Amino acid sequence: MKLYGFFASSAAFRVRIALNLKGLAYEQASIHLRRDEQRAPDYLALNPQALVPALVDDDQVFIQSLAIIEYLDETHPSPPLLPGHPADRARVRGLAQLIACDIHPIDNLRVLRYLRKPLGQDQAAIETWFNHWIKEGFDSLEHILATDGQAGRFCHGDEPTLADICLVPQVFNAMRHESFDLKPYPTIMRIFGTCMKRSAFDKAQPAKQPDKE
Amino acid sequence: MKLYGFFASSAAFRVRIALNLKGLAYEQASIHLRRDEQRAPDYLALNPQALVPALVDDDQVFIQSLAIIEYLDETHPSPPLLPGHPADRARVRGLAQLIACDIHPIDNLRVLRYLRKPLGQDQAAIETWFNHWIKEGFDSLEHILATDGQAGRFCHGDEPTLADICLVPQVFNAMRHESFDLKPYPTIMRIFGTCMKRSAFDKAQPAKQPDKE
Repeated sequence: MKLYGFFASSAAFRVRIALNLKGLAYEQASIHLRRDEQRAPDYLALNPQALVPALVDDDQVFIQSLAIIEYLDETHPSPPLLPGHPADRARVRGLAQLIACDIHPIDNLRVLRYLRKPLGQDQAAIETWFNHWIKEGFDSLEHILATDGQAGRFCHGDEPTLADICLVPQVFNAMRHESFDLKPYPTIMRIFGTCMKRSAFDKAQPAKQPDKE
Repeated sequence: MKLYGFFASSAAFRVRIALNLKGLAYEQASIHLRRDEQRAPDYLALNPQALVPALVDDDQVFIQSLAIIEYLDETHPSPPLLPGHPADRARVRGLAQLIACDIHPIDNLRVLRYLRKPLGQDQAAIETWFNHWIKEGFDSLEHILATDGQAGRFCHGDEPTLADICLVPQVFNAMRHESFDLKPYPTIMRIFGTCMKRSAFDKAQPAKQPDKE
């Protein structure tokens, strides 16, 4: 398997965690987003969306991190990244999508760039925007995790799932911005700490990737 | 089952289509987003994220449209909304997420409101923003559907899937803005036309909901 990613991409980070949890060997290709390598013709032929990640397995190309992770879970079922019961699976997918649909895309590099140009926003306004959407998402995520009685050591029970795979890169993303206050999120940060003790999460972090700058 | 939605919400529209395709009866509760009913305490107790949709089934609450639809697909498998083979499932989920992660949340009501206030953008700038993100997504979606050889009458083969369920509300969303040009998307529009001939899609459209204004 070959993963096209970028050390700083949260979506690629998710797939790296999933591959590590499954114990799958993979080759990495770096697509430098800040140098716009995602728009090079060779990469566009793989992923016309000009985003990372893309995973190539058996000469087939897969895009979108959550779709890729569910593919890995279906083709390599052990250890499972989703619980067995439909209602539990829906809870885990819901938590994952709360992050992957409603926080991350709005704070993505291409959106922040658009705010700067053409919208002419300054760094302070962009920082406020960034923090606003993480806060919106983390306020509700913390509330759910702290109150619905289904979190254990991880977001759902005592083993990592797709929800933790999304949570950890989003916390890294928040920590990149010193102005974002993580103190109101004790449950998120407790689970984050538990995850980071597992090598599958730790080895996937941006600072430990070959293309780290 | 009870669906908390709003006639104009693309995410609620997706769930209505899925319920109709499955032939499931459901009650509708309207959460008026422009009147901020999603922030009323009763609704926040159901969905702390203050977004629609939420589905209540057997006294359990489910959030996030794609998670809800996969739950319906797992609990009511016929007709299936995903193909059987993992690689095909990943393609369908990837197309769905291209829309549900990378177009819709960036153009959502709460984001457009933020652009107006506090960012002070005028209507023209907001319209340009809106169209920009649909164009980014639809350019790549059209390319994939037109070239990868896997679309049939629908996005994946000849029966509707999760991908079509996301495509149709996004086209409605685009059509609400007269300035958005749909001519560059013949494959998307062909599939859209095929979908709308099915009553499951037609009956789910905003204009046919009880809370339509």
